[in-house]
Amino acid sequence: MRETYVVGVGMTPFGRHEDKTIEDLGQEALRGALANAGLEFPAIEMAFCGHAMQGTTAGQRVINRVGNTGIPIINVENACATGSTALYQAVMAVRSGVADVALAIGFEKMGRGPIQNPAVAAARPAATPRPAGAAPMPSMFSEVFKAHSKKYGTTIEQMARVSVKNHNNASLNPRAQYGFKVTLEDVLNARMVADPLTLLMCCPTSSGAAAAIVASAEVARSCKNKPVAILASILQSERPGTPGDALHGVTEINTRAAEKAYAQAGVKPGALDLIELHDCFAIAEIVHYENLGLCARGEGGKFAEMGFGEIGGKVAVSPSGGLLAKGHPLGATGIAQVVELVEQFRGESGPRQVKGAKLGLAHCQGFGGAVTVHILTSQV
Amino acid sequence: MRETYVVGVGMTPFGRHEDKTIEDLGQEALRGALANAGLEFPAIEMAFCGHAMQGTTAGQRVINRVGNTGIPIINVENACATGSTALYQAVMAVRSGVADVALAIGFEKMGRGPIQNPAVAAARPAATPRPAGAAPMPSMFSEVFKAHSKKYGTTIEQMARVSVKNHNNASLNPRAQYGFKVTLEDVLNARMVADPLTLLMCCPTSSGAAAAIVASAEVARSCKNKPVAILASILQSERPGTPGDALHGVTEINTRAAEKAYAQAGVKPGALDLIELHDCFAIAEIVHYENLGLCARGEGGKFAEMGFGEIGGKVAVSPSGGLLAKGHPLGATGIAQVVELVEQFRGESGPRQVKGAKLGLAHCQGFGGAVTVHILTSQV
Repeated sequence: MRETYVVGVGMTPFGRHEDKTIEDLGQEALRGALANAGLEFPAIEMAFCGHAMQGTTAGQRVINRVGNTGIPIINVENACATGSTALYQAVMAVRSGVADVALAIGFEKMGRGPIQNPAVAAARPAATPRPAGAAPMPSMFSEVFKAHSKKYGTTIEQMARVSVKNHNNASLNPRAQYGFKVTLEDVLNARMVADPLTLLMCCPTSSGAAAAIVASAEVARSCKNKPVAILASILQSERPGTPGDALHGVTEINTRAAEKAYAQAGVKPGALDLIELHDCFAIAEIVHYENLGLCARGEGGKFAEMGFGEIGGKVAVSPSGGLLAKGHPLGATGIAQVVELVEQFRGESGPRQVKGAKLGLAHCQGFGGAVTVHILTSQV
Repeated sequence: MRETYVVGVGMTPFGRHEDKTIEDLGQEALRGALANAGLEFPAIEMAFCGHAMQGTTAGQRVINRVGNTGIPIINVENACATGSTALYQAVMAVRSGVADVALAIGFEKMGRGPIQNPAVAAARPAATPRPAGAAPMPSMFSEVFKAHSKKYGTTIEQMARVSVKNHNNASLNPRAQYGFKVTLEDVLNARMVADPLTLLMCCPTSSGAAAAIVASAEVARSCKNKPVAILASILQSERPGTPGDALHGVTEINTRAAEKAYAQAGVKPGALDLIELHDCFAIAEIVHYENLGLCARGEGGKFAEMGFGEIGGKVAVSPSGGLLAKGHPLGATGIAQVVELVEQFRGESGPRQVKGAKLGLAHCQGFGGAVTVHILTSQV
C-alpha cells in the first residue's frame, strides 16, 4: 500500500445556487483543485464522481467542461456518504498503484424540503417508527434522540448546543450556506420539525461541489502546495442489529469504521486536532462524539454541554460549520470535509483557524448502509 | 498487477419481471454466483453494485438480502456501461491487491418506452439532430446508420441481418427476453421507430440482474468450477470529435478502448472465439465489428451480410442474443455478457454453444461517455 496524499482541493460555496447547473458548480470545484495542486487536467489518470440524484453520467458532463482526455470516469453513489465514497475510491486507486493521480469530485443540486430516500424506510423499518406527517430522516433522528436520552439522560439543551457551536463556526466560514450565529434560545424556539428536533437542529438541503486531487508521494513532492497525507481510508456497510433498537444504526457501523481507521492510521482519538463529522442532525453529532472515541459511551451530551468540541476546546469538531450550517449537498459533503481539513492544516482558515492543526478526521454516514472515515495529517 | 479470475457467475432471466423487486432479482443473481463459485457470502471482501435508476444505496438493499458482513459496498453508475463498470472496479480491486474476492453485481428494473437519459442530449447535441417525435437514442442511431450508409454504402438489409442473427441466438437462450426467431422480412416490416430503424432493430427496456465473483489466483484454485482469467479490463471516457460527425461518438472511444484491451491482453482480434458486444441498435453492432477490429473500417455491413458473426462463423458475436434480443437492463447488461462468456468457456451453453470457446471479449458503451472492454480466457 503506497503512501497517498491530497495534493489539491477546491469547492464552491454551499447554498441554493438556483442560477447554476451542476456542470457550473462541478467545474468550479475541479478548476479550483487543479490550481490548488498546481496541476493541469491531463495529469488526472482516473476520476470518481460522487452524486446521488443528478442522473446518469453526470460525472462525465461535469468533467467534460474542464477536459476530455479519455480517462476512466466512474459515477459513485452511497447516499449521504457519496462524496466520501468517491474519495475512498480515489485513495484506493493511488494506494494500490493503479493511478498516480486520481480525482475525487462530488456535486449535487438539491431541491427544498425533505430528502426523498427510498433506502431509509427499507433499511430499518423496525427501528424507525415514523410520526404521522413527519419526514423520514428527521423522524428517525427524533427516535435516536429519545433512545439516547432515555438510556443516558441526554437533554434537548445539550443537543441544541451542537447547533449553536456549528452555526458559530459557520458564521466564520464564507462558504457556509447558513453563515449566521444562533443562540441556544434561537435553536430551542425554532420551528419544530420532528419533536424535539427543531429546524436549527436539522441540516438543510443544499447545492454545491467539492473536489480533491489524490496523488502518490512522487507527484505530491512536485505539487504547488504542501501535500496532506492520508493515514486511513475506511468504508464500511451496515450489519444487522436488534429489531427496534433505534441506536444501533447510528452507533455500531460508525464505531466499527472509526476503530478500523484509528488502527490503519496508528493514531488514537485523543491525538486529533480537528474533526469534520456527519452532523446531519444535532443529536447525530452527540452520538458520533462517542462513536469516534472522543468520550465514553453515553457522555456525548456532556461533551457538547462542556464545549469540548468548540474551536479552542479539546478537539475542534466541524470548524467549517458542519452539515448543520455549512450545508449538505450529498455528493459534495464528504469531499468538502477534506477541503476543510487541508485548509486548516495549511493555516488558511482565517477566523475559524484551529491553532496548530496537524491531525484531522473526516466522517460521513450514508443511510442505507455506508460509513466512511478518513484520517489525514500534515506531519509528513 | 495480479492475475485475476472470474470464479462464479449468476443471473436471472431478462424480461419484464413485473412481480419482482430489484432485491428479489439481485439476490437471485448473487446466490447463483456464490453457488457457482462454491463460496459463501462472507468470502466477499468488497462489492461494486451497478444500477442506473434504482435510487440511493440500492446495492446495499440487494446485498443485505444475502448477507451483512460490514464490507465496503459501492454503488456505481455509467449509463449503459453501468454493469461493466462495476466489473471493472471489482477487477481493479483484486488486480491491485486491495481484495482477494470482490463482487460485481448489476440489476435494473426498467419501465416500458424510451430510456430517459439526460446525458445523451447534453453529450453531443451537434451530432444528434432529433427527428420530431422520436426518442433520443433511436434517433441518434438512425443518424449513425445514415452516416455509415452514406460513407460506406451500408444497407438496411445488412443491418436487419444483425437482428435476425441475434434473435436466432436468443431463441436458443432460455434467459432471453425475446426468445423467438425472426426473419429478414419480420425485421424490415416491423413498426418504424426512427427511420430506417424498426422495432426489431432496437433493444428493449428490460429488468434483470447478473453477478460475477472476481478473485485472486489463490482463491480461484479453491473454487468449485473452472476459473476464467481476466486478460484485459479497460474503461475509457469520450474525447471530443468534430461537431456534426454522427460516427465519432460510436467509433473513436470504442476503437481506443478495444486497442488498449488487446494490448493489455496481448491478443489479436482474429484469435477471439466469441464476443458479447453492445448491440443496443442493429447498426451499433455493425460499427462495433469495425471498432473491435473484426474487419476493416467500412466493412461492417458486409461482415453482417456474410454471416461472419454467427455461431459457427468467423467469430460468434452475441451468442446470448445480445442486447437486441436477450434484453438490456442497464445495470446488469455488462455483467451478463461475462456470464455468457464464462458459461461458453465451460461448455454449458447448450444449443448455442460455441465449439471450443476459449477466448472471448465483452464490450459495453454507455452514452454520456463510458466504454468498457474485457477480454477473458479459459486457457489458464
